[in-house]
Amino acid sequence: MSETRIWTAALAVIGDEILSGRTQDKNVAQVAKWLNVQGIRLVEVRVVPDDTAAIVAAVNALRARNDYLFTTGGIGPTHDDITVDAIAEALGLAVTYHPDALAVLQRYYETRGGLTEARMRMARVPEGAALIPNRMSGAPGIHIDNIFVMAGVPHITAGMLDSLTGTLEGGLPVLSATIGVWVAESEVADLLGAVEKAHPAAAIGSYPFFREGRVGANFVVRSVERAALEACLCELRERLTEAGHVVVSDGI
Amino acid sequence: MSETRIWTAALAVIGDEILSGRTQDKNVAQVAKWLNVQGIRLVEVRVVPDDTAAIVAAVNALRARNDYLFTTGGIGPTHDDITVDAIAEALGLAVTYHPDALAVLQRYYETRGGLTEARMRMARVPEGAALIPNRMSGAPGIHIDNIFVMAGVPHITAGMLDSLTGTLEGGLPVLSATIGVWVAESEVADLLGAVEKAHPAAAIGSYPFFREGRVGANFVVRSVERAALEACLCELRERLTEAGHVVVSDGI
Repeated sequence: MSETRIWTAALAVIGDEILSGRTQDKNVAQVAKWLNVQGIRLVEVRVVPDDTAAIVAAVNALRARNDYLFTTGGIGPTHDDITVDAIAEALGLAVTYHPDALAVLQRYYETRGGLTEARMRMARVPEGAALIPNRMSGAPGIHIDNIFVMAGVPHITAGMLDSLTGTLEGGLPVLSATIGVWVAESEVADLLGAVEKAHPAAAIGSYPFFREGRVGANFVVRSVERAALEACLCELRERLTEAGHVVVSDGI
Repeated sequence: MSETRIWTAALAVIGDEILSGRTQDKNVAQVAKWLNVQGIRLVEVRVVPDDTAAIVAAVNALRARNDYLFTTGGIGPTHDDITVDAIAEALGLAVTYHPDALAVLQRYYETRGGLTEARMRMARVPEGAALIPNRMSGAPGIHIDNIFVMAGVPHITAGMLDSLTGTLEGGLPVLSATIGVWVAESEVADLLGAVEKAHPAAAIGSYPFFREGRVGANFVVRSVERAALEACLCELRERLTEAGHVVVSDGI
């Protein structure tokens, strides 16, 4: 019955800047999409402030009831970066310098003013942690138990997710197929909704684009079942064609 | 001592489309900014799926420990809109049709095909609830106890927030000012920490960015006291300039 096992993940987004409205979060959507591809379902997100007690409470609640917990934010060099200490506290572990992280930072800052004490903060990890490579800006992410601690800056988070791709055990991968159409998505919104409703085991995503002075959209059908995916895709293509739209099956 | 009372709010974002990564949430930032102006601090956000048990658990946890709880999403006309029922369940209340909501919907749909059974779903409220006006699309939001139930579509949410403006008791609004600097935050980490320590009524957040091939950071000073904000901002600008960094006061 391993096929029906659903793997779940939670995400803790850490940072006052999200809760104040100053920064528009982009990590929920990007982590969610990445998890889908790994066959893991994002089932809960919490946004918490830069406050140790709040982070510890969220981490302990979320790690206990999910296969994986991801965090973003608070692993930089400044005084408001307290994620590592909070996660160590949640796990009852000491914080130590990771020798490989020190080596990475040493190399990275060799030509950038040297490894200061503040920069060395980014080599601190809960005892026993492994590193998640960061090819963007030196300071690595951290893997400890079922927790993956990542940066908050979205393109750095993306690089860390990339280096984790294929390394986590998941369930059935989410399959997808794309239909590209030269149509404004608003023109076929009802059609899309109706087709999705008729195929409960599938979901349809709509991604508009503007190219060569024309408006178009890619419709992405997703499912964990190949038969459900193909049935949904087939009906969608049929109804779009019936409605007079030019369908390019592979996306545009 | 009413000045020092901090009013807190939590937000529950309800919807599978956020957790699948299909929809980029915009309500966290807009609710956060609106709350700041009301003198209320957003201290926790949870994103939960379209699942009754998950919504009930989040609602009960968040409403108990905050002055206010806001929710977005799941109050439309379709089968997957279950927020009203979940909130009634959390509060141990029955669900009834609100006569004013029925009247509003009747008027709204008079010229739009009439009030169907599906549309009448949007007049259902937990027993004893008041309505939050929705000038965008008819279906009102709901106010019951310390809970404010709003739409998920951001511009409709905005209209509901607008009609709540000035109606909630709050404390002093959080004031903020941003200093943008072309510097790696790790280079000034000690300086930031020292300035924050010297101004206990203010907090400094550090947010790095990468633009035009250069590294920079925005430093955001926050306080509920204007004098404390300005004193902290002033010392921060002075010490950054002394250290030879180019300061752009309005952020970059």
